[in-house]
Amino acid sequence: MKNILGREIPESIQGYGAVKPFKGAFASLGEIEKKSVAIKPAVPGEKKVLASIQEAISKCNMKDGMTISFHHHLRNGDYILNMVLEEVAKVGIKDIKVAASSIFPVHAPLVQHMKTGVVTGVYASYMSGPVAEAISRGELKNPAIMHTHGGRTRAIASGDLAIDIAFIAAPTCDTYGNINGVDGEAACGALGYAVADAIYAAKTVAITDNLVAYPACPIEITQEYIDYIVQVECIGDPKGIVSGTTQITKDPVGLKIAKMTSKVIETSGLLKDGFSFQTGAGGTSLAVAAYVKELMEKKEIKGSFAAGGITGYLVEMFEAGLFESIFDVQCFDLKAVESYRKNQKHQGMSASMYGNPHNKGAVVNNLDVMILGATEIDTDFNVNVTTGSSGMIMGGSGGHSDTAAGAKLAIVVTQLVKGRLPIVVDGVTTVTTPGETIDVLVTERGIAVNPKRQDLIEKLEAANLPVMTIEALKQIAEGMTGVPEKIEKDDKVVAVVEYRDGTVIDVVKKIKD
Amino acid sequence: MKNILGREIPESIQGYGAVKPFKGAFASLGEIEKKSVAIKPAVPGEKKVLASIQEAISKCNMKDGMTISFHHHLRNGDYILNMVLEEVAKVGIKDIKVAASSIFPVHAPLVQHMKTGVVTGVYASYMSGPVAEAISRGELKNPAIMHTHGGRTRAIASGDLAIDIAFIAAPTCDTYGNINGVDGEAACGALGYAVADAIYAAKTVAITDNLVAYPACPIEITQEYIDYIVQVECIGDPKGIVSGTTQITKDPVGLKIAKMTSKVIETSGLLKDGFSFQTGAGGTSLAVAAYVKELMEKKEIKGSFAAGGITGYLVEMFEAGLFESIFDVQCFDLKAVESYRKNQKHQGMSASMYGNPHNKGAVVNNLDVMILGATEIDTDFNVNVTTGSSGMIMGGSGGHSDTAAGAKLAIVVTQLVKGRLPIVVDGVTTVTTPGETIDVLVTERGIAVNPKRQDLIEKLEAANLPVMTIEALKQIAEGMTGVPEKIEKDDKVVAVVEYRDGTVIDVVKKIKD
Repeated sequence: MKNILGREIPESIQGYGAVKPFKGAFASLGEIEKKSVAIKPAVPGEKKVLASIQEAISKCNMKDGMTISFHHHLRNGDYILNMVLEEVAKVGIKDIKVAASSIFPVHAPLVQHMKTGVVTGVYASYMSGPVAEAISRGELKNPAIMHTHGGRTRAIASGDLAIDIAFIAAPTCDTYGNINGVDGEAACGALGYAVADAIYAAKTVAITDNLVAYPACPIEITQEYIDYIVQVECIGDPKGIVSGTTQITKDPVGLKIAKMTSKVIETSGLLKDGFSFQTGAGGTSLAVAAYVKELMEKKEIKGSFAAGGITGYLVEMFEAGLFESIFDVQCFDLKAVESYRKNQKHQGMSASMYGNPHNKGAVVNNLDVMILGATEIDTDFNVNVTTGSSGMIMGGSGGHSDTAAGAKLAIVVTQLVKGRLPIVVDGVTTVTTPGETIDVLVTERGIAVNPKRQDLIEKLEAANLPVMTIEALKQIAEGMTGVPEKIEKDDKVVAVVEYRDGTVIDVVKKIKD
Repeated sequence: MKNILGREIPESIQGYGAVKPFKGAFASLGEIEKKSVAIKPAVPGEKKVLASIQEAISKCNMKDGMTISFHHHLRNGDYILNMVLEEVAKVGIKDIKVAASSIFPVHAPLVQHMKTGVVTGVYASYMSGPVAEAISRGELKNPAIMHTHGGRTRAIASGDLAIDIAFIAAPTCDTYGNINGVDGEAACGALGYAVADAIYAAKTVAITDNLVAYPACPIEITQEYIDYIVQVECIGDPKGIVSGTTQITKDPVGLKIAKMTSKVIETSGLLKDGFSFQTGAGGTSLAVAAYVKELMEKKEIKGSFAAGGITGYLVEMFEAGLFESIFDVQCFDLKAVESYRKNQKHQGMSASMYGNPHNKGAVVNNLDVMILGATEIDTDFNVNVTTGSSGMIMGGSGGHSDTAAGAKLAIVVTQLVKGRLPIVVDGVTTVTTPGETIDVLVTERGIAVNPKRQDLIEKLEAANLPVMTIEALKQIAEGMTGVPEKIEKDDKVVAVVEYRDGTVIDVVKKIKD
């Protein structure tokens, strides 16, 4: 069958089940149900601290076929996922589904566990590195399931993703399970992606290298949700956790795109007191932030909030008084961690509060402007950030689809051509984010506005910005590169791309050898 | 039938249903289930701020028979409960069940709503004043259901108390529903009792007199849980909300009891680094805190935390460095509000985190010493804080049963005789807290230790403290007052007293005219 975007999708996928096809970004927002949770209460006097991960596996009754979860705040410095799976493999447990909020190159040992059948399923909102490549090659028994950050919490709360045991990497944890991410050697700041796991998992194990006396302070995840605690030598490599602030691009093409983007924002009418803003950590995105900063300072605009994964650059804007506050689901660098630790108005948020479409209102719903990247964008404005044009998985939505759906103005910024391939294409290799939620594409050669935003087209044209159709941009790109050849794909579905509401927006097929 | 304490309880109660008899404080801690929640998600662009309470009632589809909830952080200054019920009555809705975390004299208009059939049921953890008296006289159609603070959140999470619409008095609320209790004219501090309502109610309405721009900061209850917001002129009378710090008793009998209690604590062996402590706001309880403070200073003891409803006196101990931190479910005075606003280590907690027996570990489980009051205590150490000896409801557990169950040393402090009536009796008029969770009774004439605590009896005797049996204390009391006459009661059950696990520990019968 085809979904509403015309993507060919099986009605049922082996190892996934029946497919609910994507029907539009806001088509599934009727009454919903958050699942019930069965837990074992703690009796006064019971101790939670165990001697080892092995003991936790045993106390939690881990069995073949279970789903275990991890969060990715330690990013490419995370030791926990590998540490736990090594112990799982040792005791001979098989057929485990790993629900990691994201997977990085550091998680390469997972490939071996896929080969031996220890791990047969993977859920992630983003994946890059050897695991993503192995999945693309068809080495995982069941198709991987790829969520958005908000969609992951929706899936957990609804029971679509039922977690048997959550393992929470805890930079600081007290002896009764109160956790924060701001202290300890592996301090990573906000722990927003781990909250739903803690609340909805049947069993939750905190793993920490900084076990402190009761009670910890501050507390990001409370004792109410933690069954057991294991102390280990080290939960992660700080160098991989917070990589230092990404730099604003120095590339003239990137700067040209950023400057034009800032003009689009200015012209949109949204840049006024109360302005809210989110951008990623890429060099061009940060350059947009820099130009927006200039504009805000010049016009003396006081914004309401910046949100998202937070970089030092957004902290600087906040500390300069340009934003009233910050909503932080994850800190990208040490400056963000430090600000989150000390500034009351640098507030944490759970991934559900950030982007879950199935709660009474996520933070993304209040975003004025979101700056997004793209690996490909097609003439319907559908964006791919999941696969390269070869079909290899090298990313995933993360918050891409969530913020695009929520923001009043969702802008994709990209060069027209990368690595000799056109970025604007007839049909993207994989749809991550539906075009109906993208308002504008800004490239170095011109600006394309989604035809549903006639109001914006008029404003940008009146301001003499280089507006053209997205088809025109595609032709310019193809004029530079030629029309790319269609890649051949195998029939096997290696990953199912779920939109934030749990419908299937696309599938990823096995790459041909 | 009789429950394990020998209380005569019907097997089924009209307007309540089948009775699960109390079987012991820790008898019901097997696997439990937190209920599912059906909600209507918010679509981007939807506004939450409504024009009036009337509009909120209409938007929430309030109907005959529904359960609506309120929290009591505004205490005897609360305007919200009366305001909402007045509107409910106006539109002709009947048969409403009011789940207020506590009810105060200010809520007197509720009596009229009981008479007209607008309100036919009441849930509360504490009630005093005209409503309590009317219920005692049998003027409510169905029996009132009285919880503990922790038990109320258990009931809400389990679905035993299913809330259709929660009305949350919000001292500060932003336009998308983020709430705090620290700013605004009606600032009351921590909002711990309202958290479960927000999470589990089908619909939640925030009512505020301080509507601020998005986003509020700090945030105690998030936008994820709020459907609608109504702005009103005034949510409460600050004079009734925070009454100013209660004074340490000057009564020599009270001081004698307090001094003796501090010696019991010292002798117990618990008064050492890491010590944790909770006490109420009564004059004798505060005097205990004052003596404990002296001891801690003399011995240079650094405690871990103080918890509970927080008074300025506990804040002083915290600020003097005697406790590492505070856990606060509700602020009792302005000094506590101020400290909660400014001190990071003065941490808020939900009522569930505070005392819910059905989570993975409440704060009460980590209490070393709890100082409790009593209206009556019987020779099995069962305590009544629900009714006067006449059978009139004039209180309720609040956190009494929760803290007694959790604390390593639960001490009841009371004069032996009050108002010419003995406090130590053969059988209490109503059991609020089971004797198995009470360790010690301290009176001005001597100390009685629960026989199950032989270890403590030995320690106190070795320290030459005036230990005697509770029967001996009863005889001394009766020697002063005579044996009180048994009061006659009607057969009608006017209130069901639920223990924190939802079993029925006692019932309150209608008082005889």
